[in-house]
Amino acid sequence: MASMTALVTDTRRTPGAAVQPVPIEAVRIGDGFWRGWLDRLYGVTLPTQHAQCEATGRLDNIRRVSGRVDAPFRGRYYDESDVYKWLEAASWALAGRDDRRLRALVDALVDDIAAAQQPDGYLHTYFALERADQRYSDLVNKHELYCAGHLIQAGIAHHRATGSTALLDVVVRLADHICAEFGPDARETADGHPEIELALVELARETGQRVYAEQARFFLDQRGRKPPRIGGYRYLQDHEPAAEQQEIAGHAVRAVYLACGLADAGLELEDGALWEGAERLWCSAYETRVYVTGGLGAHWAGESFGDAFDLPNRNSYAESCAAVAGVMWNWRLLAGTGEARYADWLETTLYNGMLAGLSLDGAHYFYPNPLSAAAGHARVEWFECACCPPNLARLLASLSGYLYGVSERALWVHQFVAGRVDADVPGAGRLSLEVDTDYPWSGEIRLTVRQAPESPAELRLRVPGWCDAATVEVVPADSVPAPSPFEGEGWGEGASGHAPAAADLHRSPATGDYAALRRVWAPGDRVILRLPMPPRRLVSDPRVTANVGRVALARGPLIYCVESHDRPGLEQDAFALPDDAAVTAGPADERLPGMTLLDMTAVPLSGTPERGALYQCVSVDNQANGAPTAPVAIRAIPYFAWANRGPSTMDVWLRRQEAPGA
Amino acid sequence: MASMTALVTDTRRTPGAAVQPVPIEAVRIGDGFWRGWLDRLYGVTLPTQHAQCEATGRLDNIRRVSGRVDAPFRGRYYDESDVYKWLEAASWALAGRDDRRLRALVDALVDDIAAAQQPDGYLHTYFALERADQRYSDLVNKHELYCAGHLIQAGIAHHRATGSTALLDVVVRLADHICAEFGPDARETADGHPEIELALVELARETGQRVYAEQARFFLDQRGRKPPRIGGYRYLQDHEPAAEQQEIAGHAVRAVYLACGLADAGLELEDGALWEGAERLWCSAYETRVYVTGGLGAHWAGESFGDAFDLPNRNSYAESCAAVAGVMWNWRLLAGTGEARYADWLETTLYNGMLAGLSLDGAHYFYPNPLSAAAGHARVEWFECACCPPNLARLLASLSGYLYGVSERALWVHQFVAGRVDADVPGAGRLSLEVDTDYPWSGEIRLTVRQAPESPAELRLRVPGWCDAATVEVVPADSVPAPSPFEGEGWGEGASGHAPAAADLHRSPATGDYAALRRVWAPGDRVILRLPMPPRRLVSDPRVTANVGRVALARGPLIYCVESHDRPGLEQDAFALPDDAAVTAGPADERLPGMTLLDMTAVPLSGTPERGALYQCVSVDNQANGAPTAPVAIRAIPYFAWANRGPSTMDVWLRRQEAPGA
Repeated sequence: MASMTALVTDTRRTPGAAVQPVPIEAVRIGDGFWRGWLDRLYGVTLPTQHAQCEATGRLDNIRRVSGRVDAPFRGRYYDESDVYKWLEAASWALAGRDDRRLRALVDALVDDIAAAQQPDGYLHTYFALERADQRYSDLVNKHELYCAGHLIQAGIAHHRATGSTALLDVVVRLADHICAEFGPDARETADGHPEIELALVELARETGQRVYAEQARFFLDQRGRKPPRIGGYRYLQDHEPAAEQQEIAGHAVRAVYLACGLADAGLELEDGALWEGAERLWCSAYETRVYVTGGLGAHWAGESFGDAFDLPNRNSYAESCAAVAGVMWNWRLLAGTGEARYADWLETTLYNGMLAGLSLDGAHYFYPNPLSAAAGHARVEWFECACCPPNLARLLASLSGYLYGVSERALWVHQFVAGRVDADVPGAGRLSLEVDTDYPWSGEIRLTVRQAPESPAELRLRVPGWCDAATVEVVPADSVPAPSPFEGEGWGEGASGHAPAAADLHRSPATGDYAALRRVWAPGDRVILRLPMPPRRLVSDPRVTANVGRVALARGPLIYCVESHDRPGLEQDAFALPDDAAVTAGPADERLPGMTLLDMTAVPLSGTPERGALYQCVSVDNQANGAPTAPVAIRAIPYFAWANRGPSTMDVWLRRQEAPGA
Repeated sequence: MASMTALVTDTRRTPGAAVQPVPIEAVRIGDGFWRGWLDRLYGVTLPTQHAQCEATGRLDNIRRVSGRVDAPFRGRYYDESDVYKWLEAASWALAGRDDRRLRALVDALVDDIAAAQQPDGYLHTYFALERADQRYSDLVNKHELYCAGHLIQAGIAHHRATGSTALLDVVVRLADHICAEFGPDARETADGHPEIELALVELARETGQRVYAEQARFFLDQRGRKPPRIGGYRYLQDHEPAAEQQEIAGHAVRAVYLACGLADAGLELEDGALWEGAERLWCSAYETRVYVTGGLGAHWAGESFGDAFDLPNRNSYAESCAAVAGVMWNWRLLAGTGEARYADWLETTLYNGMLAGLSLDGAHYFYPNPLSAAAGHARVEWFECACCPPNLARLLASLSGYLYGVSERALWVHQFVAGRVDADVPGAGRLSLEVDTDYPWSGEIRLTVRQAPESPAELRLRVPGWCDAATVEVVPADSVPAPSPFEGEGWGEGASGHAPAAADLHRSPATGDYAALRRVWAPGDRVILRLPMPPRRLVSDPRVTANVGRVALARGPLIYCVESHDRPGLEQDAFALPDDAAVTAGPADERLPGMTLLDMTAVPLSGTPERGALYQCVSVDNQANGAPTAPVAIRAIPYFAWANRGPSTMDVWLRRQEAPGA
């Protein structure tokens, strides 16, 4: 294992960053929810994705540029980006676990990529050889710098994870080439698909060369020019200057990568306009356009955001890549502000909108993630446009890097994952915690201090917005409570002298925050955070017309759904959940091992029309004839787990039976 | 008034047409529902539209081509199409009433257009003069042949309505030019916006020159080629050969004009593949994609059809032009088959989806016609892209031509409009009827024979699909019933000897049909068709997710809606209509003179969330606390009449309170 440098974003020297990252190597994911996903990542997901890249010619496309393979180009002009995302994933994975076979694949691939680089630093497999003279001829559509951005991200990850500069050197030469080719005195335009921007800022952090961040700002500034540089299309976020856009619009993945670039460049360059643009777009997205799962992008048409509150369920797009991008975006805003709302949405996206993209066997993928599905929506092994699988892989592989943060004399616990963290807390020293939890199935998180600095340090525990009855308890190793075990920032009172110290965390519901515990920690000190997670009923702002009269179920960070497997005899939407029906966290399904499911009784609805005529006249007389039917038992499962038990139909938003009244 | 030649489509010599048209001059619209709309058409709509065309430079754009005006081109490259549609409208209007001022405007405009024609027959105001060398350089986007199609339609209407060949000669020269420029030995492509196809078929009918219909078939055959001629876009109906398309798709107005062209060319050229294509697309549209109002085109994005059953209400597009196109399409399929389902949808579109496009004052227009509107959706006087206003005008001006039909020894009554028809029935002779009805407010239609041929003739009365309890009564002038007053085609029994003859018309609900009455008619004979119209509740196929748990109200051919004016104190969707709540046809509103409204009581819903957080947690306890609130009186008005009483919100589909039960 390399030195502790595998930071998903390295904002340690970035001015004004509120929270610093903790490297992947400093975090061990233990037995618990995520362990199985990571085991499958190493055992199934990464190897099968590599095999797909090989089988579809994606790897040979790289080898043919250097003459190592003599074959025609296969696939689409942006296919190499899938390889680069896989390489980024594999690199992060090597930071987490040394895997000999994976390392061999990575080494060979890095070698192939390096061999494909042109003498001037350019590197692209489609615009090479017979198409070398077409370089940069169709930036609006052909994703040339988008591919370069993913390669740069892979180069950074590879260096941080392995310590090798073999790929970093390649991407530095590529970046230098791009800086020479694009600028005020060269080509004044940008790529139709953002990605290069965030990659260049990270390269500036990695190399200490601010010029790359300036180049990112140049690309950001190309959007919304008059006359337009890239067509002026809303679809491409070129309808207004990037930093001035009031509403998130167009192709969802592009929009969110662009917003990540705004956040990165804004923070790195202390450019308030760029940063505020990222925050403004976040409000537009997360206050009016996000699915309850964290999914982004309402429409198949243009894979795009819709208007505010336009969130169809049956045809929701919510591309897996957009969920990954959403995690990246929230991470960046969290780093800049330390505000829990970003960690909240990161969590929601992680456990729902993102995770649904991957099957429980680790080898099948969703591209769109609808919130209501008719029969026939199933995960598949690969896509012709295969952006999603390696995107899911690189997020899973780097998951450890998104769990914790540090700031002056403080360790932040953003997410609750069983395992251990060995964090170097600025101004204090090494603080190591063991985390014991069955989260997200249980809301009890037990933290045990294993190593502590001698000076006081703050433990900042996120209290998620979904929880309105959190408590925290500090049990010192010597069982004698400290006089003032924690300082609440409005988070309730300090404990009053008897052990164990505990406090309710009162706050307005639905707004997450961090509970701060400051003390001189000692090995053996324990902190127990309790996040009660009774099943919750969620409703939407009434402007979300798709959800009027509907209710969704949640428990802890998980959004639930009802599949046809678990409502025998009931068609989709042919039943309602009464407001007074009990919803109980119940037993598991052997096909969904270890998961907490929800049991409830629903009311069949008499008047549900049959499939047939588009519009049908209902006779009121007929309605009165039917004798009331007994409620029917139904079961809800976590949204991420749907479509793993054979063909089904599925709904997140169930029809709600409200009591008439004021 | 000219001779009786103003046929909206002239299929009199078309092989295989099931019903022939009756000319506009043969129909008088008397006092009743439509009279006011037509009075406003002549008094307000046509004059103000002409003034808009003048004020926006649309007319000067024509005059500058001939040098009559020295001014730069103004507006968009397709703006002249609005002028041509206005001219078509004004021409049909002159067939209905001779209006001196209107005639003067028409004559001047025809003169301006003729002067703008180039020596080679070409005529377009944008691709003229400084852009003459760009002719046909961007057919995919620039609507050049679309404009020509509307001009050809205007030329045909002008000739049929006035007898003058002044404009017909122009469009024949234009058509000859197009035939020379496009074809297997010339340009092999078509226009991105269909319209030329249906215009050329009608020109073939008007001139007897089959070559124009062949040219239309050539254009139809250009779509769906490999490699594509016009980009291959689904948006432009170029993704598959036109006659082979299984589902209606893309831009709605384009798709329906294309389908009209398929029907016209298929019928005229006895080309079964084209005709079947038109029928197949009709099934796709009217069985899975039409709004209950007859509106077509679900989405703002691309002004386009969505997937089957994808019919959002809040953002429904349902462009006014698409409704007009829908009337034209249904009319063509009715002419070819005589099947009442087409006349049914024509009626639904006419009274709802189309008519809502025009304000009660005749001077304001909707472009999209949502079925649910938040505040702010209001008709305006004109649009920068002003396709809809003159399209509405040309349909209203030619309305008389869509009401009746004739076939061998039969007069068809497609629509029920007060007034008179003097029809020449093939094989029989002149059959004149006076029609006395308050339709659509009343379902009683009284027909009195004023002139009749000596031989037997059949009166074919449409029994709309919405009516399941129709009766017909024949009262002979001599009060002695004929032994067998009518022949029912499965429509019940002949009357049995006592006067008046009457019969129930039994049939399966929701499928319209024609009731056939055959006898030797005599002046003074009366026929009374009774179409009971109690308020009806409509529900949708459950695959229309937007309408799950919702009900719409209808009465006769009218779809109703609830505006905020008529549900004081209730927000949109914050109430439900119980299945057992009585809906009564009630008193009028003085701001909606003469209209029958619907009164009912609704139940306020306690659990409706407030505007605010996108997703909100509901507490079950809170739900049980509210004491039931008394039902609240609400009122529904005809959909076409909404947004005429000041700013409002509006819904067609109301939340439905179903009884639980089997």
